[in-house]
Amino acid sequence: MIRIDYTNVMAETIGERDGILREELLSFRHFVVETHSRIQKEKERKFYFAKLPYQDTEYIKIVAQEIREKFDYFVLIGIGGSSLGAQMLFESLKGINHNIFNRPKFFIMDNVDPDKFKAIMDIIEIEKTCFNVISKSGSTVETIANFAIILDVLRSELSERWNQHLIFTTDPEKGFLRKFGSENNIKMLDIPSHVGGRFSVLSPVGLFPAAVLGIDIDQLLEGAKKMDLICSIEEHIEHNPAYLIALTHYIANMRRGKTISVMMPYSEKFSSFVDWYRQLWAESLGKDGLGQTPVKALGTVDQHSQIQLYRDGLRDKIITFIQIEKRESDFKIPENIPEDINYLSGHTLHEILNKELLGTKAALIKSKVPNITISLDRISPYNIGMLIYLYEMATGFSGYLYKINPFDQPAVEEGKNFTYALMGREGYKHKLEEFEELYKERYKIEIQ
Amino acid sequence: MIRIDYTNVMAETIGERDGILREELLSFRHFVVETHSRIQKEKERKFYFAKLPYQDTEYIKIVAQEIREKFDYFVLIGIGGSSLGAQMLFESLKGINHNIFNRPKFFIMDNVDPDKFKAIMDIIEIEKTCFNVISKSGSTVETIANFAIILDVLRSELSERWNQHLIFTTDPEKGFLRKFGSENNIKMLDIPSHVGGRFSVLSPVGLFPAAVLGIDIDQLLEGAKKMDLICSIEEHIEHNPAYLIALTHYIANMRRGKTISVMMPYSEKFSSFVDWYRQLWAESLGKDGLGQTPVKALGTVDQHSQIQLYRDGLRDKIITFIQIEKRESDFKIPENIPEDINYLSGHTLHEILNKELLGTKAALIKSKVPNITISLDRISPYNIGMLIYLYEMATGFSGYLYKINPFDQPAVEEGKNFTYALMGREGYKHKLEEFEELYKERYKIEIQ
Repeated sequence: MIRIDYTNVMAETIGERDGILREELLSFRHFVVETHSRIQKEKERKFYFAKLPYQDTEYIKIVAQEIREKFDYFVLIGIGGSSLGAQMLFESLKGINHNIFNRPKFFIMDNVDPDKFKAIMDIIEIEKTCFNVISKSGSTVETIANFAIILDVLRSELSERWNQHLIFTTDPEKGFLRKFGSENNIKMLDIPSHVGGRFSVLSPVGLFPAAVLGIDIDQLLEGAKKMDLICSIEEHIEHNPAYLIALTHYIANMRRGKTISVMMPYSEKFSSFVDWYRQLWAESLGKDGLGQTPVKALGTVDQHSQIQLYRDGLRDKIITFIQIEKRESDFKIPENIPEDINYLSGHTLHEILNKELLGTKAALIKSKVPNITISLDRISPYNIGMLIYLYEMATGFSGYLYKINPFDQPAVEEGKNFTYALMGREGYKHKLEEFEELYKERYKIEIQ
Repeated sequence: MIRIDYTNVMAETIGERDGILREELLSFRHFVVETHSRIQKEKERKFYFAKLPYQDTEYIKIVAQEIREKFDYFVLIGIGGSSLGAQMLFESLKGINHNIFNRPKFFIMDNVDPDKFKAIMDIIEIEKTCFNVISKSGSTVETIANFAIILDVLRSELSERWNQHLIFTTDPEKGFLRKFGSENNIKMLDIPSHVGGRFSVLSPVGLFPAAVLGIDIDQLLEGAKKMDLICSIEEHIEHNPAYLIALTHYIANMRRGKTISVMMPYSEKFSSFVDWYRQLWAESLGKDGLGQTPVKALGTVDQHSQIQLYRDGLRDKIITFIQIEKRESDFKIPENIPEDINYLSGHTLHEILNKELLGTKAALIKSKVPNITISLDRISPYNIGMLIYLYEMATGFSGYLYKINPFDQPAVEEGKNFTYALMGREGYKHKLEEFEELYKERYKIEIQ
């Protein structure tokens, strides 16, 4: 079960300067009905993520089971949309100590930071490791750089068995990984053509690593199906959670100046969910001079770091809290504690956490900072599946509100092209000239 | 060595709409000279952090050595200013795998999340664990809640030896921890009275955990001393790195609408440095409706998540990159790789990382997004010490620019008081009534 409480974004709670009027929300009803029917028609292409909950997972589960049995280490080589989903599923559903007490141990090689690469290589044993290389295009620089080094290690340490330690997740037809995989008899999983990186967590990109880690991927998809069902039948703003999230954020942004969308779970396990959300929200909606900046925070930790700013700084924020109602374990403050602190006696950590959230919300209401709370009855694949689909649909719908294409990312290319030029890649000489024109180091201070 | 390159915040690079004119920067010279002399006088009180580099570290080192010899696990119980500094020093200077290959293993109990508490308890062995409880006030809810449970565990498992597993770092005179520590013969370290949480990393708050972990704390202080020296003698904006950082950010914010300050290190080890900076910047300057929102990003990972927004979204950002020039280890892409990807051959991961940063910077210049780069020749205690002092002084100086007190955090109290009320603490009944008045749950959607 998930519950969305949006009382505190409404004008009745925080006033009209910062809050939304109910009639203002409802004034979008014609737009919503029209957009709703467009989205239903787009599900075969742009909104293809909406089809993913209905896929057949048999093959994914069979391959995952083989890997679980054969290997002690499972390393995902991928970045951005190819890693954030799996990371989120791993951290929210497998717990903080998975790698200490369970196998296969899981690592993500996303960055090209040599310190991180070394840290992973120092732990894994190559002959017991499976590498899942994930890239839709098959040519992502970081992914291919990490892969190229690993390929060399596999070939030199395992001789002819090297290809059995690799699984590629890539475009069904195009790209370097597909070609190399076919030529070398490497097991491959398909990323459906119409699914872009940041909408791909419910494709083999996220499902396969999840299955290898023992996560119930069918339950993930069940949750997503349920959310798809609700979002497909409900045209009414107040009953469609995806449209509601999109609209409250859009109105807050464009009419109340809330240019920042903070997501602040009161759960350590949800930390990576925010990283996944950050990519989805920023890369989909950050275009044409528009879009909110997604900001990651964590309760209660950031009460001691960011709440001063959120309450008394610029009035440019809307906050989404995530709350967990039931936990697998909890710890009680004992009765026999010193008098000065005995107001804590008998409370549990979970209770304190939730009371801190309530206290923070009340303080924000008082400062008229709009905030939404998403409550999960517990952390489960089903609930996470619902949340994933919810935010994907909210993001897709927001594209219509902002009148932008939420499925492309044109501004990302420029930096890549300059990087290719700097690395001497063929065909990029003109970018090198442009780089030298643009890039100077004129103003510097150096301290020894 | 650290180097600050601010070429790309200047109007000559990115134009006058988004960039700063040199004469605009220099027009602050009288303000700077005046403020400079005020700051020198304030070092005995508000700017007391500037005295910390000159403290005697003998006692800290002696106690730390004892702990290193006696214990296999070292757990810091503290939150916000009491944990972010130690976390930053640990992650930047001890590496990603410290807890796997070294002792004492280090954990931070900051949150009151039962999942995190359980994760730590599942690993440590009480009879081999030292707990360092850190709180200036001695009454921080999260810290005391975690401590109360640990106290009970220590007493029941270790009988009369329980107090030898505790070290308190707290106010030299006041508060519950000081009182309880004195009564129970617990070893204690002093947080100097004039040092607030977020400026305390170079006091025993950060230095003691660092010393226990084997970090050279004298080198940390040497770096901070060097930065203090530069900042104390240089009244010229272009030669004083702290004033330069403060002024470029202030002008970008108040005159160019850059309400967001992104910090984006191209180093995994610097991830927690940004968390430390986030608290410093947000809690110090986020008041009176002013202050930038600090945002954490990581290169290259966030090129695949946030750069679309940074380049093509709202023009509300100034970005600080952190770059590491030399690494302890590096990995080369081999020569014998498939032709499609052979432009990578011969490059190292470190080179690719830095070329990605250059490519990203060029793309941002093209989109006229102001950015500063701080380069460290290497990750060392000395360089980190310089950076810490640099940002503390930049923050303190910024208080004068914004005309606010950077050393208080008045807006944090309200949420705490509501939380106390919700927990039934004596004397907070009126807050409970206020809470019930403010807090309703009127607008909700629930999905089973």
